[in-house]
Amino acid sequence: MTVDRILDHADRWHGDREVISRSVEGPIVRTTWSRIHGRAKQVTHALKELGIQPGDRVATLGWNTARHIETWYGVMGMGAVCHTLNPRLHPDQIMWIASHAGDRVLFTDLTFVPMLLEHLHKAPCIERVVILSDEAHRPDGAGAEMFMYEDLIAGRPTDAAWGGFDENTACGLCYTSGTTGDPKGVLYSHRSNFLHTFMTLQTDVMGLSQRDTVLAVVPMFHANAWGLTFSAPAVGASFVLPGARMDGAAIHELLEKEKVTMSAAVPTVWQMLLQHMDATGDTLTHLRRVVIGGSAVPEAIVRAFHDRFGVDVVHAWGMTETSPLGTLGTPTASMDGMDFETRLPILLKQGRPPLGIDIKLVNDEDVALPRDGTTFGRLLVKGPTVVQSYFRGAAAAADGDGYFDTGDVATIDTHGFMQITDRAKDVIKSGGEWISSIDIENIAAGHPKAALAAVIGVYHPKWDERPLLLVKLKDGVTATKEEFLDFLAGKIAKWWTPDDVVFVDDIPLGATGKIDKKLLRQRFADYVLPTVHPYTPKEETVGEPEERIVTPPPPEKPKGGFWPFGKK
Amino acid sequence: MTVDRILDHADRWHGDREVISRSVEGPIVRTTWSRIHGRAKQVTHALKELGIQPGDRVATLGWNTARHIETWYGVMGMGAVCHTLNPRLHPDQIMWIASHAGDRVLFTDLTFVPMLLEHLHKAPCIERVVILSDEAHRPDGAGAEMFMYEDLIAGRPTDAAWGGFDENTACGLCYTSGTTGDPKGVLYSHRSNFLHTFMTLQTDVMGLSQRDTVLAVVPMFHANAWGLTFSAPAVGASFVLPGARMDGAAIHELLEKEKVTMSAAVPTVWQMLLQHMDATGDTLTHLRRVVIGGSAVPEAIVRAFHDRFGVDVVHAWGMTETSPLGTLGTPTASMDGMDFETRLPILLKQGRPPLGIDIKLVNDEDVALPRDGTTFGRLLVKGPTVVQSYFRGAAAAADGDGYFDTGDVATIDTHGFMQITDRAKDVIKSGGEWISSIDIENIAAGHPKAALAAVIGVYHPKWDERPLLLVKLKDGVTATKEEFLDFLAGKIAKWWTPDDVVFVDDIPLGATGKIDKKLLRQRFADYVLPTVHPYTPKEETVGEPEERIVTPPPPEKPKGGFWPFGKK
Repeated sequence: MTVDRILDHADRWHGDREVISRSVEGPIVRTTWSRIHGRAKQVTHALKELGIQPGDRVATLGWNTARHIETWYGVMGMGAVCHTLNPRLHPDQIMWIASHAGDRVLFTDLTFVPMLLEHLHKAPCIERVVILSDEAHRPDGAGAEMFMYEDLIAGRPTDAAWGGFDENTACGLCYTSGTTGDPKGVLYSHRSNFLHTFMTLQTDVMGLSQRDTVLAVVPMFHANAWGLTFSAPAVGASFVLPGARMDGAAIHELLEKEKVTMSAAVPTVWQMLLQHMDATGDTLTHLRRVVIGGSAVPEAIVRAFHDRFGVDVVHAWGMTETSPLGTLGTPTASMDGMDFETRLPILLKQGRPPLGIDIKLVNDEDVALPRDGTTFGRLLVKGPTVVQSYFRGAAAAADGDGYFDTGDVATIDTHGFMQITDRAKDVIKSGGEWISSIDIENIAAGHPKAALAAVIGVYHPKWDERPLLLVKLKDGVTATKEEFLDFLAGKIAKWWTPDDVVFVDDIPLGATGKIDKKLLRQRFADYVLPTVHPYTPKEETVGEPEERIVTPPPPEKPKGGFWPFGKK
Repeated sequence: MTVDRILDHADRWHGDREVISRSVEGPIVRTTWSRIHGRAKQVTHALKELGIQPGDRVATLGWNTARHIETWYGVMGMGAVCHTLNPRLHPDQIMWIASHAGDRVLFTDLTFVPMLLEHLHKAPCIERVVILSDEAHRPDGAGAEMFMYEDLIAGRPTDAAWGGFDENTACGLCYTSGTTGDPKGVLYSHRSNFLHTFMTLQTDVMGLSQRDTVLAVVPMFHANAWGLTFSAPAVGASFVLPGARMDGAAIHELLEKEKVTMSAAVPTVWQMLLQHMDATGDTLTHLRRVVIGGSAVPEAIVRAFHDRFGVDVVHAWGMTETSPLGTLGTPTASMDGMDFETRLPILLKQGRPPLGIDIKLVNDEDVALPRDGTTFGRLLVKGPTVVQSYFRGAAAAADGDGYFDTGDVATIDTHGFMQITDRAKDVIKSGGEWISSIDIENIAAGHPKAALAAVIGVYHPKWDERPLLLVKLKDGVTATKEEFLDFLAGKIAKWWTPDDVVFVDDIPLGATGKIDKKLLRQRFADYVLPTVHPYTPKEETVGEPEERIVTPPPPEKPKGGFWPFGKK
């Protein structure tokens, strides 16, 4: 079980199926799995000539294109490690990560050459740069020490020895972007990626078929494009790659022109596509199914796909540390009788684990919690595709049974659907019970006057912590605290009501577009709650627990680029 | 990756999905994956009390029922080996196999108690017999030394430690019925069965979904019911089990009453079902897909399912040695534009290998042959679910690259569809080229006057071997040799034309209903071909090879019970 067998299989049994890329140079270009296979072998020969040995790290900093796939398999097939760098990070962070990984060769797209010319010296371990284009497109400033990909591989044999090593050999490396502390490298083995491929190919998971045409919008640098770069050749799906263009018009063109049946991307991409179609009146002829992950799916997206285009949305959750697939919101037989409105709140949850993954909720004492849809606890995940330790670093947090602590807080309902309610470090611990900061801020952000809302826990002498609501108002409007507290009333449990509302000029966002709660907590470290506050003490709810009102995510997410699959 | 995790997963995430059995006692009984999980753990406790240790063999001789599944997982979960005995074999052969395996405990159905009372003494290794029923059904003659299942497990804890051992630990054992020499035991590991489960769950393979209701007609003693006993709980499909009754009326009742969406069985079962529906005018309301394997699918079955009931037939091929899945005839994208009549000859082939399996054709010099749909060679198969050696016996035939020799002769066409044309030992080697005995006899059997036809190779001084056609005529009819040779003309290559036709009173069938060619060759060992014979010498075809006419299997197969999946 080594991943080179996947491309071998595609070559032998699905050789003529097409792989279509929007090239970084511009035109849409077409190739096949068999041609990719032959060229990936040429990459292996080139790497050997550059002195790359099994176990060495070879980095890519590139968009989704056929050349990127060739590089990926050329590296992995020979037993080296393909390290996908995330170009959306700050150049200093990219160079820090490349240095930490000890990348020896870097394959990159034309797009990133100017950045590299300025910053490459900060990662002296990189001996060679290969630009994924041809001599005719050699960019200004790229000297002879930068190879052009087509020249590098031209004329080399299209066969080379692949595999033959232990399945636990490392083949891929991906760094989490690390909101707390330095980025951490997740090392994937051939075995874990092969098992992940099988796992995703289940009908109730990604369910790819040979007859599908799959558009992989999710980047290969985001946790292996959620496995699509393995699963599409594994079944011989036709594969469509957007290159550098992920705007609504470009995505729509590929969906229609290439008759795409299935796609996967973060919500932002689908928002851009839907906005494009709103503006142009375009429609979707072939698309049947989209998998959405990376952050919570807004209800408006699911509704638009369902009502206007007859496309099924499957909400997925995972992490770099879980290869990445964790759970999917594929409907169960128990939901068969439900109408769409009844199903919708369930479909908006993060879903259920497939064979190969198990999840559970625990409290602060590591006691397993019930799956009742309201009790929330720390989300733990386990399986042969879940990281056990980080590259060159500390062991991953795992309990005695091998469960990895995701750092998320979640509920699981009676249908088995998991819903992430908060980050563990952002949850507010009030009187020994937990309050979800995200639930409150999602509702508050829906207030017509709110531009952005955030909830953090602040010190309270009796309850340890109480929620504080921070609101950035839309330009030119004013509001009172009471307007927001009234807006929340009836939508959350009374004892969740924030003890105070503060209007702020700015709510800081992190690199991936999420609210930077760490910075907010620092800013409000000296904040003192009003002595008298309007919340109903928790004691009132003892006995029958008050029903927690489950609220869908807000219709609009903060902008700011792409999230990796799951949390950063 | 141990198979107990599969039932754990079903318990945790699909606990309420139903498992419906036609009990051996008579009534249709219902349980759930969670109840099966708890009772399987009770079986583990009972086995431990009986002194069973990890690695010990525990046999089952039973029909497909929930109790059989409980036993299966109860044995495997604790690290013992579940050995499924085939009740269709001769009692002496069953006892020989049980002795060879060293089975210590035997779980069996009421059906087989009379046979056991007579023959059990021939397998003295069996210390205990457990009858899969309750005290109220204790059969005559079953003394106190035979446990009744319900009494044995009653009151035991529904939790027990499972797994925790290496994934390469053995969990299952199944003997090939061995037309040549003694039966050979194929030992399955937890790893190979887990991977087989993932492999079959691909959308283009079995593609089971949580929303399916699956009728497993194929017995658990036939190569793990083609993996369904693992794959159904893995995805939480509802599971329907026919017990001892596989006649058309009984199968139809389950299909309709339980709203079965998918099923799997050998052709004989579907012939009985279709005959039943012909007689009663019954129809099929819910069934969408059937997987058929074990022997070549007659065209009439595919046609009837397609034309009359809108059910897709997927033809599958495999062997006990391949866990068993080898190839499947799932249509490819390249067939999308074809009408049914064009697709049909392709669908009648044995199909393509999914990810996890590779196949190839070689000639007598082990040189790989082209995939042109006409060249035929020995079929080799490779993958992590393919046997490497037999239990307590010789290594399985494998070449230097790890390919296992199936003993079949096959073609692979340009769509990648493999078709078995003969058994390697039955193929006729004429002038260095191969002639398929099965192709000729399938056509000859379609002659209106033929009851049965067989083709064997007989000695020829110039060509080494030439085909001899043996025909058993229908009762009361007469025919000439020429009538049969004329019937073949134009349907096979000229140089394949048999050198002689002999009318016989009897064509012997083996235990599994296939023609016993070994015995036929013995009977005709002294046969001498007529000096002058009507075939066109092979030399005439040199240059452009004559197109080999691909013929569909005959509409009716010889009766004689069930085949195991693949060849015996």
